[in-house]
Amino acid sequence: MTGWLHRWLASLLQRRLVPARVRLELWDGTSAYPATEPTVGALVVDDPRTLRRVLFNPHLYFGEAYMAGTLKVRGELEPVLEAISRLSLIPTRREQVSLHVLRANSLQRARQNVHHHYDLGNDFYAGWLDTQLLYTCAYFDHPDATLEEAQVAKMDLVCRKLRLQRSETVIEAGCGWGALALHMAREFGVRVKAFNLSREQIAYARSRAAREGLASHVEFIEDDYRNVRGEYDAFVSVGMLEHVGVKHYRSLADVISRVLRRTCGRGLLHFIGRDIPRPLNAWIRRRIFPGGYPPTLAEVATQVLGPARLSILDVENLRLHYARTLAHWSRRFADVSDQVRARYGEEFRRAWELYLVGSEAAFATGSLQLFQVVFAPMEAVPPYWTRAEMYANNGARAPYELVGPEHR
Amino acid sequence: MTGWLHRWLASLLQRRLVPARVRLELWDGTSAYPATEPTVGALVVDDPRTLRRVLFNPHLYFGEAYMAGTLKVRGELEPVLEAISRLSLIPTRREQVSLHVLRANSLQRARQNVHHHYDLGNDFYAGWLDTQLLYTCAYFDHPDATLEEAQVAKMDLVCRKLRLQRSETVIEAGCGWGALALHMAREFGVRVKAFNLSREQIAYARSRAAREGLASHVEFIEDDYRNVRGEYDAFVSVGMLEHVGVKHYRSLADVISRVLRRTCGRGLLHFIGRDIPRPLNAWIRRRIFPGGYPPTLAEVATQVLGPARLSILDVENLRLHYARTLAHWSRRFADVSDQVRARYGEEFRRAWELYLVGSEAAFATGSLQLFQVVFAPMEAVPPYWTRAEMYANNGARAPYELVGPEHR
Repeated sequence: MTGWLHRWLASLLQRRLVPARVRLELWDGTSAYPATEPTVGALVVDDPRTLRRVLFNPHLYFGEAYMAGTLKVRGELEPVLEAISRLSLIPTRREQVSLHVLRANSLQRARQNVHHHYDLGNDFYAGWLDTQLLYTCAYFDHPDATLEEAQVAKMDLVCRKLRLQRSETVIEAGCGWGALALHMAREFGVRVKAFNLSREQIAYARSRAAREGLASHVEFIEDDYRNVRGEYDAFVSVGMLEHVGVKHYRSLADVISRVLRRTCGRGLLHFIGRDIPRPLNAWIRRRIFPGGYPPTLAEVATQVLGPARLSILDVENLRLHYARTLAHWSRRFADVSDQVRARYGEEFRRAWELYLVGSEAAFATGSLQLFQVVFAPMEAVPPYWTRAEMYANNGARAPYELVGPEHR
Repeated sequence: MTGWLHRWLASLLQRRLVPARVRLELWDGTSAYPATEPTVGALVVDDPRTLRRVLFNPHLYFGEAYMAGTLKVRGELEPVLEAISRLSLIPTRREQVSLHVLRANSLQRARQNVHHHYDLGNDFYAGWLDTQLLYTCAYFDHPDATLEEAQVAKMDLVCRKLRLQRSETVIEAGCGWGALALHMAREFGVRVKAFNLSREQIAYARSRAAREGLASHVEFIEDDYRNVRGEYDAFVSVGMLEHVGVKHYRSLADVISRVLRRTCGRGLLHFIGRDIPRPLNAWIRRRIFPGGYPPTLAEVATQVLGPARLSILDVENLRLHYARTLAHWSRRFADVSDQVRARYGEEFRRAWELYLVGSEAAFATGSLQLFQVVFAPMEAVPPYWTRAEMYANNGARAPYELVGPEHR
């Protein structure tokens, strides 16, 4: 039985959802959706409390209710989330206000945030990532590329954009399970220092380096990247900037400025971004990425690269590639859903399902962007005349011979 | 004879120039440059007044004195200017202050500014530009490219970045002598409306369109681009943004937002820019480009693209290509220096020599940047998955058949 108050609230929410062609259904099966209109799917709300919450703060409570199972989606989840995402490409007033109160991300907090997400266990991620465990946007350089191929293509693209040359030295900030650091060393003959706060990831990366005979070329360091010392030819960070927090961009700038050789250095930042400033979705911030913030290109230019006296050489927006990457992850995650449910519970499984599919929708609609930015010190000569070499067959790079017998 | 005051002033100026290895010589042949040090060249100052002025405001009076012939350069001009340019990659206090008082660029003023520079006469520019009269950065896609080839390669690169498809419609803001508009129509089969405030350029472009049988595909309009009406598939502007003036970025944003189809449109801005905000050199502003301002990428992102709800897809920095383009122009300008002197006088010739060589030095050192920015409405699907097609042999584009018999 549904009182007049909740019918009215439902009609308010339904009115917002009509342009997205999403039908809202209440616990008693009623709906205010126009009967003759086609739909992409339906949201089914189980109880009055959920309805009130979702109406009051949809950015937070849609996710909370989906996770709790009191809001269900009838039909395919992705098209429904995409349709809803298209409704709100412009930040709401609430989001604009919360931009100004986002908490700073201290060294200590960064550590906690990383533990929250990345120390769920290597096994968990191994269940649905590619075989090399890359947890960042892949690069589908041809339409039929598998996820495994696309992740290798991404690592190669990053190396080509950096124009890595044999025996150069590279700093990687936020190295995950180490795949990129090992790829750079193996395929491009460079020496890498790779930083990560996650103990479990570092342990995994070290053991892989040892197994592949690359331990003398790649040093995996369990520490904040800001503690790096020395001078290097290249700085690379893939999928870390969105966890750094705007208030710490200046210290990132100081680090890059300090470690990069001024006459020949260059760097690459690969990060989730925005067209206009906007906080990360409130539910994602609460449940998945505490402290996460996807910056605009202008924020990175004025608050990281400018203060570090770095010049922007190249920017590529790969948002469609992230949508496709997330679609792969979602399919694989669905395949292991029984194991995930058994180990972490149904709420956790629904949260991750929503996070993966919702992120796919956000990249597909252009609510989120994926930027790769190549830069060099202002006084350095840019590393290439044209970008054609990035796209030549097998790149412009010669097949590098590896250094010791351990590298066969 | 040189008094103690001017010896002291000269020593102050010399001290600033020592790191650039530039020797300062006074009217009586004296110099405070360390005798044993190597130099890249010398500045020879003719009189005390010139010395005082150059010391007081080098950004303005270096050019004024060079133009008047009271300051000469001994040795090659370009390396000397490059060495001096490297000394000041960071804006001075004076420049930071003048940033805030740069005048607005009204419609009326834009018209005057354009007349100042571009109505010098087609013959003047024909003397030293490429045969198609492109007065913007070329693209040297291979090391041996001639200026003519590099300008065609630039036009082709712009079209590929825009992924122009046959029978699409294009707006060009600031079309110069019309080469790009004609290239787009001829090679990519699109219909173009091209705007320009310069009567002489428009007349030239129209007669070329008629001669080449493209008049039905390209409309050259002598008007401010802000008066454009209608909806189009692509918006392109090459070398205009640096004349628009920051206060008018919002109206540029309104224009792009109004004319670009929201679901499939895309655009390209090609402009001289900066890494950090800084006014154009004071002398260039006085003598060559009144109202000119090279924006940062962040200024364009936050003041043009953001307000127009446009998403950045791709950015390329081509500053080395502009340095090389300017070197070509300088060589050709030197070849016609007798004619230029005879028609416009020696002051004018020296001003243009300094402007061309000084700009080459600014792009070579990274004091100026050249950005190509590709964008699309936030809700549009990006026009390509990867940039590889821009670099495939002959591009990804099929050889377009042209429409009428006049196009053979």
